[in-house]
Amino acid sequence: MSVKLEGNIFVTGSNRGIGLELVKQLAGMTGGDTHIYACCREPEGSRAQALREVTTQYSGKISIIKLDVSDEDSVSAAVQAVSKQIGDGGLNLLINNAAIAKPTFPGTLAATSKKHMMEVYETNVGGPFLTAKMFLPLLQKAAGGNSAEMHKGDTMSCRRAAIINISTYISSMEKCSENFHLAQMYAYRTSKAALNMLTCCLAEDLKTHNILVTAIHPGWVRTELGGSKAPLTSQESVLSMLSVMSSLSNKDSGMLLDWQGTTIPW
Amino acid sequence: MSVKLEGNIFVTGSNRGIGLELVKQLAGMTGGDTHIYACCREPEGSRAQALREVTTQYSGKISIIKLDVSDEDSVSAAVQAVSKQIGDGGLNLLINNAAIAKPTFPGTLAATSKKHMMEVYETNVGGPFLTAKMFLPLLQKAAGGNSAEMHKGDTMSCRRAAIINISTYISSMEKCSENFHLAQMYAYRTSKAALNMLTCCLAEDLKTHNILVTAIHPGWVRTELGGSKAPLTSQESVLSMLSVMSSLSNKDSGMLLDWQGTTIPW
Repeated sequence: MSVKLEGNIFVTGSNRGIGLELVKQLAGMTGGDTHIYACCREPEGSRAQALREVTTQYSGKISIIKLDVSDEDSVSAAVQAVSKQIGDGGLNLLINNAAIAKPTFPGTLAATSKKHMMEVYETNVGGPFLTAKMFLPLLQKAAGGNSAEMHKGDTMSCRRAAIINISTYISSMEKCSENFHLAQMYAYRTSKAALNMLTCCLAEDLKTHNILVTAIHPGWVRTELGGSKAPLTSQESVLSMLSVMSSLSNKDSGMLLDWQGTTIPW
Repeated sequence: MSVKLEGNIFVTGSNRGIGLELVKQLAGMTGGDTHIYACCREPEGSRAQALREVTTQYSGKISIIKLDVSDEDSVSAAVQAVSKQIGDGGLNLLINNAAIAKPTFPGTLAATSKKHMMEVYETNVGGPFLTAKMFLPLLQKAAGGNSAEMHKGDTMSCRRAAIINISTYISSMEKCSENFHLAQMYAYRTSKAALNMLTCCLAEDLKTHNILVTAIHPGWVRTELGGSKAPLTSQESVLSMLSVMSSLSNKDSGMLLDWQGTTIPW
């Protein structure tokens, strides 16, 4: 697998799990023309310790940005901070990774409240909606620049300008009957189905701007969210996802792919 | 087309458009063993005038219930009111029709705020979530009774116990590229994709209780929401949808169908 990603990359929810691993691997595999904006709600808090360590390790390559994706003012402040640092450049890759799941597994109907439904939607859909909308000028700036190493006819790539929404296999309605009883997760599933629709809408909307928008399922990963029984490590999942992101082109915009690049039906 | 629906039927958003027409046609075509609970936010308000007239016309057959589907206390009060009137019976058919669309057409990314996203989700998904969850005991009571005229092997029907979620063609991700530029409607589309997932989850969850759960697209109808250029009248749409509801059985649970019974891909 070869991974070719570069430029200005923004990752939400990057203090733990898949988000932290994305920042680590991106920092380790990219060259000097790459800068990573690693976001989390409390950059100074104990839960961001590991992220601060990675930032120290790759000195000058990672900026930690304070961000609560569900808060419009917070997203606005992040856009300002990134704009200032980027200068005349644009944002090449926005990875919407921050997500929550409430109530705790398995999330039955009886255990789920309307409050859960609203909170999970606010972070998992409201967040990517706000970041996409508010970083759009920076993504357009990147998309307007020269595009590196495009295949013939392809105008889109994660090196040029892209939004990657981290989704899930259990967002698939086609597959719901297969896996519902393993993880009911009403609030989480409905939010991720909506995130998939947001992905489709943005892909259609932004294709004239040459901005690619794709949803990716990271696999079932041993994280806080995935639990200890999951078959994949976050290292394996992220390495594979970055390889998939590297290879995305026009045909993948508006799709839901798994960490190996296989299309998941809606 | 023959329509065979009966029993206790609950319709949300029934003071206008498709909801009002559902109540009218159900009242006109059903026998004395049918009772319709017609819900709206302000039963005494000027916008419920037409519903009050229908209720007078079909004296004793329709009860108007005050209901704001996004308010848990309001749904709880509606359950209490219906329970009291039903006595030992159950609820046979719950039609989640109430929905909103914000901002106004065409609902571009620039015109849509996070507040719109949240408000539309609260009514269009939070509402059906709450009614399904809180009316479940009454639906189970109906499902436990004798089932009339079942085909061999079929255990589910709208006469026994069912939830019908009124969805839309533009909830289809498969079809998004075909119709996105006709109606962008970010907040509405994402909410309806989530409603489809809720439909799938409930269908899986409730099939052991013999409760059918299906999403139906009413067609593009000349209502406040659909506008004056829509090809279908609410009379045509509702007559056809009621015929489809009459014929639903096990194979249709967890599906999205149009007003003529044709499956719409997710």
